[in-house]
Amino acid sequence: MKLHGYFRSSASYRVRIALNLKGLGADHLPHHLRKGEQRDPAYLALNPQGLVPTLQDDQGAIITQSLAIIEWLEETDPEPPLLPKDPLRRAKIRAFAMALACDTHPLQNLKVLGRLRQIGLSEEQVTEWAAWANREGLSACETLIADEPGPFCFGAKPTIADLCLVPQLANARRFGVEVAAFPRLLKAEAAAKNLKAFADAAPERQPDAE
Amino acid sequence: MKLHGYFRSSASYRVRIALNLKGLGADHLPHHLRKGEQRDPAYLALNPQGLVPTLQDDQGAIITQSLAIIEWLEETDPEPPLLPKDPLRRAKIRAFAMALACDTHPLQNLKVLGRLRQIGLSEEQVTEWAAWANREGLSACETLIADEPGPFCFGAKPTIADLCLVPQLANARRFGVEVAAFPRLLKAEAAAKNLKAFADAAPERQPDAE
Repeated sequence: MKLHGYFRSSASYRVRIALNLKGLGADHLPHHLRKGEQRDPAYLALNPQGLVPTLQDDQGAIITQSLAIIEWLEETDPEPPLLPKDPLRRAKIRAFAMALACDTHPLQNLKVLGRLRQIGLSEEQVTEWAAWANREGLSACETLIADEPGPFCFGAKPTIADLCLVPQLANARRFGVEVAAFPRLLKAEAAAKNLKAFADAAPERQPDAE
Repeated sequence: MKLHGYFRSSASYRVRIALNLKGLGADHLPHHLRKGEQRDPAYLALNPQGLVPTLQDDQGAIITQSLAIIEWLEETDPEPPLLPKDPLRRAKIRAFAMALACDTHPLQNLKVLGRLRQIGLSEEQVTEWAAWANREGLSACETLIADEPGPFCFGAKPTIADLCLVPQLANARRFGVEVAAFPRLLKAEAAAKNLKAFADAAPERQPDAE
């Protein structure tokens, strides 16, 4: 398999964790987002959104969107599971993941922040926008798992909720969000970071890290 | 079941279509987003994001996030299926749905547009922002299914891709996007709108429509 990504992309980071947890190897092909490499015609032919990640399987099939890739990995390589079997638990975990993957991360990715700068927002306003998006999403997530004993977001093992949480917390810190306000999320992050699968997927451990 | 929603919310609209396609009844409980009813403490206790929709099942269990609700419906009431069995097809369909549900709709929902106004953007700039988000997402989706014969997004029957597409096209038109640029998407929309399940889910057909 080939994973087209970028070291600092939190959507790529989610997929790297999933591959590591499942013990799957992939060639990592970096596309430098700050240099605009995701808009190269050759890459747009793979991913018409011009976003990372994109997965190519061994037969050349192309899958875009991090959560679609992770659900595909879960269906084709089910062990260890990243979702439990119970439909209601699966729904709760997907909802947590989507609170970050739909309503948080897309509001503060490079493309959207670039658009805000184009419109004329100052650097300070752009950072405050990104911090706001992170605070809103993470606050809701803190409440969603308030009654979950953990240590991970949902139970004793990592799920797709943790795959979305750890990269999002890294973003939140980068934008100056006071993450101490989210003790339950930090507990899950600490459990995750003890696992080699998460540690090896971190941005600073990638070959394209700057 | 109870579905907390809002007639014009495209995320609620997706779930209404899914319920109709599966022949499932639900009490529809409207929350007037423009009046801020989604921020009532009683509603926030159900959905800490303060977004619609929220589903409560007959046992009182709560599920948030439209795509998590739809995946749960698919797992608990599999007929008729909204996703095929083949993992790669499922991944392609989920990726299309998420290009809209993650990277398009959340950039132009009421909450985000309200924030842009707070920052000081003019009404014209806010509309142009929303139109941009729709154009970017729909353009990518047009390419994603360019080679799909249809008539629906992925084949002869509706899938979760169509559930996301039809509400998004309604938004795009509301923001002045020239949707004639997306003939393949319009073909899928036309097929969908011929189905009673889609027609009955339309915003203007809901009891809280204004």
